[in-house]
Formats: sequence, C-alpha cells, structure tokens
Amino acid sequence: MNQDYIVPNNWSIIEEGFNPESVKSSESLFSIGNGAMGQRANFEEFYSGPTFQGSYIAGVYYPDKTRVGWWKNGYPEYFAKVLNAPNWIGINVFVNDEQIDLFTCTTIGNFKRELNMKEGWLSRSFFATLQNGVQIKVESIRFLSLDIDEVGAIKYSVTPLNYDAKISFTPYLDAGIMNEDTNWDDQFWDVLNIVQEGKQSFVEAKTMKTNFHTCTFMESKLFLNDKEVAVKSVDFKSASYASSKYEKNIKQGDSFIIHKIGGYTVDRNQDRNELISSAKEALKLATDLGFEGLLEMQKEAWAKIWSTSDITIEGDVKAQQGIRFNIFHLNQTYLGKDPLLNIGPKGFTGEKYGGSTYWDTEAYCIPFYMATKDQKVARRLLEYRHAHLEKAIENATKLGFTNGAALYPMVTMNGEECHNEWEITFEEIHRNGAIAFAIYNYHRYTNDYSYIPEKGLEVLIGIARFWQQRATFSSDKEQYMILGVTGPNEYENNINNNWYTNYIAKWCINYALENLEIVKNDYISDYSRIIGKVDITNEELKKWRAVADNMYFPYSEKNDIYLQQDGFLDKELITVSELDSSQRPINQKWSWDRILRSPYIKQADVLQGFYLFEDHFTTEELVRHFDFYEPLTVHESSLSPCVHSIQSAKLDRIEQAYTFYLRTSRLDLDDYNHEVEEGLHITSMAGTWMSIVEGFGGMRIHNNRLTFAPKIPKRWKNYSFKVNFRNQVLKVNISHSETTFELDGLNDLKIVVNGDFVNVTPNVLKTV
Amino acid sequence: MNQDYIVPNNWSIIEEGFNPESVKSSESLFSIGNGAMGQRANFEEFYSGPTFQGSYIAGVYYPDKTRVGWWKNGYPEYFAKVLNAPNWIGINVFVNDEQIDLFTCTTIGNFKRELNMKEGWLSRSFFATLQNGVQIKVESIRFLSLDIDEVGAIKYSVTPLNYDAKISFTPYLDAGIMNEDTNWDDQFWDVLNIVQEGKQSFVEAKTMKTNFHTCTFMESKLFLNDKEVAVKSVDFKSASYASSKYEKNIKQGDSFIIHKIGGYTVDRNQDRNELISSAKEALKLATDLGFEGLLEMQKEAWAKIWSTSDITIEGDVKAQQGIRFNIFHLNQTYLGKDPLLNIGPKGFTGEKYGGSTYWDTEAYCIPFYMATKDQKVARRLLEYRHAHLEKAIENATKLGFTNGAALYPMVTMNGEECHNEWEITFEEIHRNGAIAFAIYNYHRYTNDYSYIPEKGLEVLIGIARFWQQRATFSSDKEQYMILGVTGPNEYENNINNNWYTNYIAKWCINYALENLEIVKNDYISDYSRIIGKVDITNEELKKWRAVADNMYFPYSEKNDIYLQQDGFLDKELITVSELDSSQRPINQKWSWDRILRSPYIKQADVLQGFYLFEDHFTTEELVRHFDFYEPLTVHESSLSPCVHSIQSAKLDRIEQAYTFYLRTSRLDLDDYNHEVEEGLHITSMAGTWMSIVEGFGGMRIHNNRLTFAPKIPKRWKNYSFKVNFRNQVLKVNISHSETTFELDGLNDLKIVVNGDFVNVTPNVLKTV
Repeated sequence: MNQDYIVPNNWSIIEEGFNPESVKSSESLFSIGNGAMGQRANFEEFYSGPTFQGSYIAGVYYPDKTRVGWWKNGYPEYFAKVLNAPNWIGINVFVNDEQIDLFTCTTIGNFKRELNMKEGWLSRSFFATLQNGVQIKVESIRFLSLDIDEVGAIKYSVTPLNYDAKISFTPYLDAGIMNEDTNWDDQFWDVLNIVQEGKQSFVEAKTMKTNFHTCTFMESKLFLNDKEVAVKSVDFKSASYASSKYEKNIKQGDSFIIHKIGGYTVDRNQDRNELISSAKEALKLATDLGFEGLLEMQKEAWAKIWSTSDITIEGDVKAQQGIRFNIFHLNQTYLGKDPLLNIGPKGFTGEKYGGSTYWDTEAYCIPFYMATKDQKVARRLLEYRHAHLEKAIENATKLGFTNGAALYPMVTMNGEECHNEWEITFEEIHRNGAIAFAIYNYHRYTNDYSYIPEKGLEVLIGIARFWQQRATFSSDKEQYMILGVTGPNEYENNINNNWYTNYIAKWCINYALENLEIVKNDYISDYSRIIGKVDITNEELKKWRAVADNMYFPYSEKNDIYLQQDGFLDKELITVSELDSSQRPINQKWSWDRILRSPYIKQADVLQGFYLFEDHFTTEELVRHFDFYEPLTVHESSLSPCVHSIQSAKLDRIEQAYTFYLRTSRLDLDDYNHEVEEGLHITSMAGTWMSIVEGFGGMRIHNNRLTFAPKIPKRWKNYSFKVNFRNQVLKVNISHSETTFELDGLNDLKIVVNGDFVNVTPNVLKTV
Repeated sequence: MNQDYIVPNNWSIIEEGFNPESVKSSESLFSIGNGAMGQRANFEEFYSGPTFQGSYIAGVYYPDKTRVGWWKNGYPEYFAKVLNAPNWIGINVFVNDEQIDLFTCTTIGNFKRELNMKEGWLSRSFFATLQNGVQIKVESIRFLSLDIDEVGAIKYSVTPLNYDAKISFTPYLDAGIMNEDTNWDDQFWDVLNIVQEGKQSFVEAKTMKTNFHTCTFMESKLFLNDKEVAVKSVDFKSASYASSKYEKNIKQGDSFIIHKIGGYTVDRNQDRNELISSAKEALKLATDLGFEGLLEMQKEAWAKIWSTSDITIEGDVKAQQGIRFNIFHLNQTYLGKDPLLNIGPKGFTGEKYGGSTYWDTEAYCIPFYMATKDQKVARRLLEYRHAHLEKAIENATKLGFTNGAALYPMVTMNGEECHNEWEITFEEIHRNGAIAFAIYNYHRYTNDYSYIPEKGLEVLIGIARFWQQRATFSSDKEQYMILGVTGPNEYENNINNNWYTNYIAKWCINYALENLEIVKNDYISDYSRIIGKVDITNEELKKWRAVADNMYFPYSEKNDIYLQQDGFLDKELITVSELDSSQRPINQKWSWDRILRSPYIKQADVLQGFYLFEDHFTTEELVRHFDFYEPLTVHESSLSPCVHSIQSAKLDRIEQAYTFYLRTSRLDLDDYNHEVEEGLHITSMAGTWMSIVEGFGGMRIHNNRLTFAPKIPKRWKNYSFKVNFRNQVLKVNISHSETTFELDGLNDLKIVVNGDFVNVTPNVLKTV
C-alpha cells in the first residue's frame, strides 16, 4: 500500500483535508463518467499546483505516428492516443478581483471531497482565506448524466464569510488543451467555429487526422442563495476559448451560486452539420429539468444499476468500499449502449496505454457484464469482435498469414492494430485465445448457442487458422511449437513455447472443430452460408488436427510442472520475498533487459491457463503450479491479484485470498503500483468482482448449472452478491454459518452448492 | 543484383543517360565528402522530380525524442538523428526566364555523371532543350576540399546552342531544410542571422536542442567562357534563405560560367562568435587559390591517399571499380583528423540509423585504417572509446550494473546511448566485446603495447566487470549463462546464450585478466594509477574467473556444432536456397515476428566468432559450422558478405569467395539490398578491403609476424594491395603464378608466406 488517505466509507470515496501532494491521485480516484464521456476530478476553479487535466469523449482518438523500428516491415501505422478533449467544466472565480486558487490560499479549512457512488455525483467543499483577507466557503457538486449522456451539470457556490465581496464567475470552454503524454507539444484539435448566443456558448472543433467533429457547449444560470438572479454576462472569445463573466456584489453570509450545464455532441452519434443544434436540444432538455431535476434522475439511474450489481460486505468497511469503487467505475466506463465502444484500460481517467480494447475485455470484463446486466450486453461485446473479423484477417495478412487466418489486434479503436511495440503487437498473440474463450464462456453461462452459428463460428475459424499457421514444426523435437511470443507475463518477450499460449492455441483449434461439427449437423443453413464464405477443406482440417494433437508443452520432470516457457529454468530463480523491497516495483526500478532476464512474473501466466481451464487439471496440479509460480510473481499488472485470489480461495488459503482481494479491490485507492496519478485500472476492476463471486463465492458453471462453494474471510460478518443467470437474478448471501439464496424470476432454479443439488424457488429464501 | 546502370570503369563511377528513376540511387552513389562534411550528389539547379536532398556536417546531430515504450525504465533519452544541414550547393538557373529543370526539359542528350575517385571530384554534363525551345549545354564540376575542409567548390557552365539567350544564375544558401526521415515535419534549425556583404552571403543557424552553431556561406564569381566578368548581383534574403542573382545576355555558343565556393564553419571547431569571420578566412584562402587552384590541390591530396591505400585488380573492371569505390568512400567519411569523430554507417550519404559510432568501427573499420594510414589513426579510434569510458559506466549504471562495469552504447554521438530499440540498446551487448577485441587487434598488428597501460586496461576492466555481472548462474545447468541478448544476427532478439556473445564475453574477461597481470608486472606506475581508480579486489577477480571458467555454450551433439542460441534447433530449418526468391529480402517482405522465428541469419554470427577467433578452431570445425550456418544466411546486413568471403577463401572455395567479394564490393553500386537510395553502407566497405587483403591475400598476424596465404579468383590476372605494417609500407602483388613483395621502409621485414619464412628487403622486389 502506498497511500492511505481515503476515508473508509461504505458508499462514498472521501478525502478530508487539502493536500497538494494528493491532488493528481484524487483526480484519478474521483473521476466521473457516464459511458459516453468522462473526466478526471479536476477542480472547476483555477488551480496553479500540479494537476493532470483530463476530459475524454468515448471513441474519440488520435492516430499518433509510430516512431521506432521504421525499417521493420509490418509495423502498425499508428498508435491510437486517447485524446484529451476540450474542457467544459472550467469556472474561473474571483473574489474582490483575486482569483480563487487552492494552491495559493492563505488558509484552507474543512476541505472535503466526496464521490458518492450510490447516487453518482462528485462534491467538494472547503473554507479558505484568500491573500486579500477575504474568507470564503465554497461548495460544488458535479455529475455526468446517465440519462442525457451528452451533458453534465455543475453547481458551484461561493459564500464570503467576513466581508461583503464582489464575486465573479467566468464559466468557460477551452479547446486549447494538450495531452498529458504529449512529448512534442502537439496540438490535436482544430477549432472550427465559436458561437456565443445568449447564455449559451459552443465551440466546434475537430480532431486532426481522425476528423472527429465535436461541439463542446455550456449554459449557465446564476443564483443568490436559492433564488435565480439575472446577471448580465460579459462574453469573450479567442481562437479556441469562449467564456462569459458574471459579476455581482455579494453580502457577507450570502451565497453566489452558478449552475453550469455543459458537455459534448459528437459526429460519432449525430449529423456533423447539426452538432450545435443537437447541443441546443440537449441543453434544452437539461435546463428544463434544472440542476436538481437532473440530479434526481441521476440518483434513480444509479439505484437501478446497483439493484442488479451491488455486492455488500459486512464487517469490513475497506473491503466494502473497494468492491463498490470497482463496480462503480466499471459502470461509469461502459454501459453496453453503443456497439462501437469497448472498455478502455483506463476508462475516462487517464491517457496511458492508448486504444480502447484489449484482451482484458474477454478475459476479465465479460463475466462481470454477463452477470450484472442483461445478457445482451455481453453478446454485444462478442459482436464487437465479430464486426472486426475482416480487419483481424487483414492484420494477419499483413504479417504473412493466408487463407482467412485472423489475428485480432492487441489494442484497437476500430479493429485495426494500434499499438506499436513489436513484442506486443506481433507477439502477444494469446489475445486470440481469450477472444475464442469468451465465446465458449458466453455460451456456457447464458446457454445462448445462437451466437455461434450466427457469428461466432466465423471468428473461431479465423482464429483456428491463425494458430495452425503460426505453429512451426520442429524436426528436432518432432512436435509443433509456437516460437517468438509474449505470454500474459509481459515481463518476458519473444520467448519460445509459452505454455499458456500453446495450451490455448490447441484448445482454440479443438473448440473450433467441435463447433464446426455442431453447426454442420444442427444449423445447416448457417453452415452452408459460412462454408460458402470461408472455404474449408478436409485437407485444412487435417492440418488443424495435426497441430492440436501434436502441440509441444514445455515441462520440467524435476519439478513436475509445466514451464512458463522453454528457457524458464535457466533463470536465477530467486523468489520475490528474497528480493529487497527497494527494488520494487521492478518496472519502475529496473531496466527492461533486467526485467526480461529475471524470473519475475508480472501477472498470472501458467496460472492464467489453470484459471481458464480449471477443469482440465487436478487440485494437486494447481497446488504444485501455484506454489512454484506465485512466489515468483510481482503482481505488477492490475490483472494479477484477482486470479491469484480466486485460486487461493479454491485452495482454501482464505487469508492469502483475502490479501489478494484487498490488493485487487483497493489497487487504486491504496495505490499499490505507485501510479494512480496516471489514471485508474478499469478493466482489472472486473477481476475484483470475480475474486468475490468466483473466489469466495466459488461460483462456476458445471454441466449447464450454476454451482457454488461458499467461503468467507475471517473478518467479514457476511457478504452478498447478485448474478443475473439466464434472465433471473439470484442473490447469494454468505455468512460464516450459512448461505442463503433468493431468486428474482419466474422459474425454479436448480443449483449446486458444495456438491449438492439445491432447488431455489422464486421469491423464497433458501438457506443452505 | 538490383541495378546495373553504372558504367564499369577502373577509376570512376559513371552514369550515362538521364533516368529519373535512378536519380536517388545516383545521389547516394556519387556522394562526396571530406571527413568534415559531405553531401549527396544532388543537382545544383532546381529539380522537380523525386530527389533526396542531403547535406551533412560531421558531428552535428539532433536528439530526437524516443517515443515507444515510455513506461519502460532505462530507455535512452534520445535518438541521435543525423541532421540535414543548410544547403549551400544550390544554383537556380534560368534561360530566357525559364528555369532549368531536368525533370521537365523537352529533350535531354548526352547526360553524363562522373565521380572521379582518383582525383576526388564529381562532374555532370548534358544537352537539353527547354520548353521555350532554347537548346543548352550544361557542365558542372564539384568537390569538397580535403585541404581546406570548411569549403567546397562548384564550377557550373551553361552554353546556349541555338539562340542568344538571357541567362541567370541565382546561387543561394537555404537553411529551410528538413530531414528526409522526419515524420512530423519538424524543423531542426533556428536561423540566427543572415548577412550579405559584396559577393559573400552568410547564414548563421543553430540546431535546436543540441545548439550546434554553424555558418553556411558562399561566394561566387562569373565568367564568360574563360574570362571573369563583372555582373551586378541582385541580392535577396528571407527568414532562412539568402541568394544573389546574376543575369547576363549570352551569345549562342558562348558559355556563362559561375564558380561558387561554399561551405560551413561550425562551433565544434571554431569560436561560436567568430563563425562569420572564420568563414571569411576560409573564403579568402579558397578564392585566392581559385577553382582551378583548389582542384589541383584536391588531386594532389587524393594522390597521396591512394599512394598508401590503393588496391589494383587486373582483368576484372567491375571488381576493380568496386574496391576503389569502397576505399574512396571510406576516405571521404573519416580521415582520422578529429578525435571526436567516428565512422557513421551511412557516412555523409543519408540519414538512416542515426548516430555516428557503432561496433562496425571496431569489428570492421580498424583493420582498414590500421593498414592504410599511420597507426595513430587506429589508436585515435581506440582513444575515442577510452574517452567515453565514464559514459559507458554511466550507461551500465542506468541498467543496474555497479562497481564501474561499463556498457558501451550501441549507437552514439558523444558517448551516450542514442538508439531506441530495447532489443538493440539493452541487449545487443556483444558490442562491448568488439571494443575489447580492437585493443587486442591493435596491439597484435602494431606491437604498440603502450596503449594498454596508458588507457586500454581501464576499458578492459570496465568491460570485464560488465560481463561478469551480466552473466547469471543457472542452478539447473550449473553454469553461467547470458540471457536475453541480441547477437550479431539481429534477426533474433532477446535470445538466451548467443554463442558468439558468450564466447567473446569469456574471452574479454580472460584478456582483461592477462593484461592486468602484464601491467602489474611491467608497468608498475600505470598499474598503481589504475588500481587507485578502479579498486579491484581478489574477491572480484575470483568472480571474473568463475564466470569465464564456467561459461555455458549451447552445442548440438547431433550436428557437432555450437548453436547460435539455445532454441536454434527448434526452428524450421529450411535453407535460403529453398526459399522462394519473391520472399527476399525478408526484411522488406516479412513482418518482424516472422523474421524472428525463422532460421534466417542476417549476418555472420557464430561465424563472426570463428572469424575473430580463427586460431581457436580447426579448419574442420570451420567447415562444419560454415556449412551449417551459411546456407541459412540471407546476408541482408552489409557486414555479412565480407566475413563469408574471407572464410570461403580460407576454405579454398575461391569461386564462392569471389561471389561474396562482388557482393560486398558492389553492394551499393549494384544495390543488392534494394535500398541504396537511402545512402551507402560505409562501414561495411572496410569489410570489402578485408575480403581482399585477409580473404584472397590471406594476410594475418601470427606470432608477431605478417603472414600471407595468397589465392586469386580465376578471372583476375593479378591484384595488388599495400599495407602499412609498423611504419613500413609493404606492397603485395599476387598473380596466378607468383606473389611479389615490395617494401617501402628502412628495415628488412621477415614475413611468412604459405607457412615459409620470407625476408623482404626495402626497395628490393621479392618474388615467391
């Protein structure tokens, strides 16, 4: 744990007392989003201290040129930079002509920030003495509307406490923004048009190169205490900026308040030529409701989300806060409304990594969305990949593959590969496996087979073709090998025969063969449509089988374990606990070559395979592999602790599972990896959910049935979670003495608990 | 061979007939340089067709930011971009107000370009009909002075053939240049000052970030036929440009001629505030001599160079042209005058790769400079690395090494690493070995041991420390390993136990131990000075020995060969001859991952070790390894064919050696690698020299003595070369029937020819 300033609370993230050192961390933690846009928790008013200004629009990116290895063939043409969008939250505030700036105030008291996760709003309040001696109280509250997802709303109040004072608010729109990660002071936005009409301002701007057209807009109302007041505005605009200044003399003790509604319209969803009129419509809707009306709707919308996705933990506030923080941010990032969007690893909280879609979606996020939302949302995530199949085939073709072999990108915005490290782009090919596994997982959970004949099978064929062609035959070993890969453990690059990759490759081929057979027999018209497209011969299927049946797996007889890769035992196998803690995190302390030749594992690799294919291995095998690999694992990927938590729970190592759980659920809150300033780890948050439901709850699907093996950490009194299983919601409540099940649905559900069948009847509490 | 338009000629590179397709290739091939500056053979007059404008000043570079992997620790801070410098050769030419532009002329006749290597100048002549119907003859000649190395001279003549015509010359200086390889349209130069005084113009500009201050200058004289004429100039300047226009009515058949002297002064060599006055001094010197006077000096200077470095081949013009082309360009690139300069891989002919100093210098260039120049030049190249020892230690420290371990950069301008691919920068560590080997090689050849106690030993200690720390102990194999490296074959990355790297690492440690002992016994004051600095304990030396004595070498019993790396036999071992030629060069056809998992070898790797450490292996071992690895070698590095040529010659495979020789000597002339447009392969040209002297001539140093094993390709009548051996020049002439030796020196030289001692007396022809 590297920070501990967040106040434990069941439903809110709270910071008390102002500390400039934690501003950037809090900007990440208190981020807000509504699936269509999001923003870091930057202050509305000017702040001259260290800050990372960030506001993001879903699906809007910039194709940054790749710069290294330009004499290497096959490089992606660009790196998709997550683009900082024009700022609409800004309000400059002056008191007797002195600007409010928390970095320079003489005194600050009662500073409090709260992210209310139950209701979906961010607030801030403080007392301050300005350098001119005026004491003020400031209160603000802000949210991005879930219902009208083009808009957000701010209510900002200033109260002079010791004098009457002249107060001015200058709400503004600023398109002169840059990316935090820009090395070159590049500008990414062309401002096209600035319009100021009455109380409204509009800045039309387009992104360079990608030509996303956006309109950033605002409208403000002023209040004295609770009463709206007319204040004449002084408007100003420059090349990339529009503002309206409202100034008024305010009596000591009175509050001058501004309600600012702002947001974006984007030509991803609207007619490019109608962005201003769409903005006006959104503003009309929002201002008619008013700040308070919008806030009421916001509370209702969040209540609905929590009703199907909440997890409660009694007896451990930090654990409770952690899991809700994770569920809250996942829902802020992705709600499943827009089929062209996906779940970016930093959501709307930062710029690092770039792109929006990683294997995280399939390996970590789909189970969460599948169980907490309508199953259409998970299917939509699968369809996203199906829509990109042609691009995945093009991508593989660029790398020399033929005949419809598909390699999905490691990182993408629109189906094209957009990451630029060769060891990742070209070699971290196991992502193809996760995409196939998600199809299996979706079918296993929902029992909706229709996706496979309709769309999934084509994806499975492209992936199987890739694996067959990617394997090479070693005449020395007389087996198929997969050379030159990066496994889930990105702390090894260009290794040969990563066990996980070889295993999932073999599985993918067999799974494709199996489904080809099912579709051939049971979905004849789909089969002929697909075969008409993909032209598979028996000759080709023979090659698939040859590879699957003859795959090489590195194995150590001495240790009786599968080896992470061929050369693993040649390393100096010093465990993490023997490593001086000053050396960690190694990715911030060591050069890349040193990391690569070390035995340290960034995240579950062999164990990831044991997680996905749990039923293929005995518990004894899991113990052996867990005890070999976990001590070498530094968990420097956010995706690491959750898998280890689930496996520890399975092995009845509940205390260890609990430690991993805290690490995954409070990864960002406690800043375990020393980097929360850069943004949150959104996709791994789904892993946190899994570590409760699959870890402690022991939930699995076996033989088409939900099964549980409930366990509970010592310090918890009880915990509960809900899963939407085949359109009925099952609530599971686990205490030290019993487990109860409540079913919200129409039909009895037969489940398995600790190996025994249990029948759950709708609306009847079942205790086990 | 990918092109064949260069006219075979013993002393010149000649192109006849104008072909816009070959303009960029010829711009590379006909490049000129004088060690202090150089330029591609761009036309003086405007050319609207595809061209790659390039003019370079030795030692002037730009620190381009690295862009990939910014979340990896230890990356170099910049990539040293070879910087295109202000253009001083430009002369816009108008005939009756129509600009001469070879791309748009109606007809072009008798186009000829010649790079006269004997005398060191570049000429061009052609007839053309302009679109306005005027027929003209143009002749130009240009060179960069070896004696006054700030200046170059151009003589440019236009003769109207069918009408009287108004002709104007507008010589100019242009600092508004960009790099060919700039992705971002970045500007790299700030223009500080433009001065025009009388016939002279000066543009002072500094490079951004690196702050190299330069003055680009010019002065012109006009002639009507042979007679200087006064023509009033119309001067013009803009933000980054200065020109003077000279216009005159010229009678049909008369020639209007301009002599333009231009060049650079640079604050690397001059006072920053005196750049214009230094330029004036250089111009005074040059214009006093005049174009013809300067040209005479140029011819003399080149005659002197050839007198000690020429190689003659009778009976094979293409082979003769090839070797002189190589020797010529090496001398244009580096003359050993400036201790801060080195031998850039593209010299002054292009921008690719960046930086100036690679392991090429030690592995390929030092033997050439050692044998064709005063031995001080080779010593200066060694001293260059000694001067960078502190930076090499810093570099290793950044990567986590301690106690004075030194890792020399893969690419550098000033001792700092400036290349940005992790697999090269961090992992192609064998470069350290070449730097140690060069010390051994220098001592072996010159018998000048003084360098070692004075400077070299410290370098050897830093390098030995690096190897000892870089090796890791495998408890599985109970040996030391070197994991995660890139060997000379850059078509494998991050491999374990590259045999070449492990072998040279062991050798380095032993060589350092050996010299520590010698210096300790024989150079007592040097020893105590050094030990005072480096603080070596017996404990440390024990660790060195443990690594050297217990180094692991990958070996295949089945094939009885050392393996290039641990996983080599797992690859699909399909030989190059079985590969469809449409797939080559693979670095232009295949994606990087495909190259990496293929068995194809870019350049000698295991065989590089057999080359450097020839005496450690039997001829039978060489045969076995050559026959295993060469068939898998694609020779896509310019450094590859020479080593294979030398080894083929040694194995009496003279025809194969000859094929490799042609490939190395005419690599650029015939554009074997399909990339000559980007510039020439300068450092590999020294390998061409070696392939004659060490390959066919069989020259070695054994037991402190020059030895020869002369062989000769069938189609050659005879060939000769000269070597400066310990301050006496030995000329060796080899025909099919005999070998003769002529010694220019004072003392008898006892050499070994085909195993027999031969005594050569100065100035007495010795025939064997």
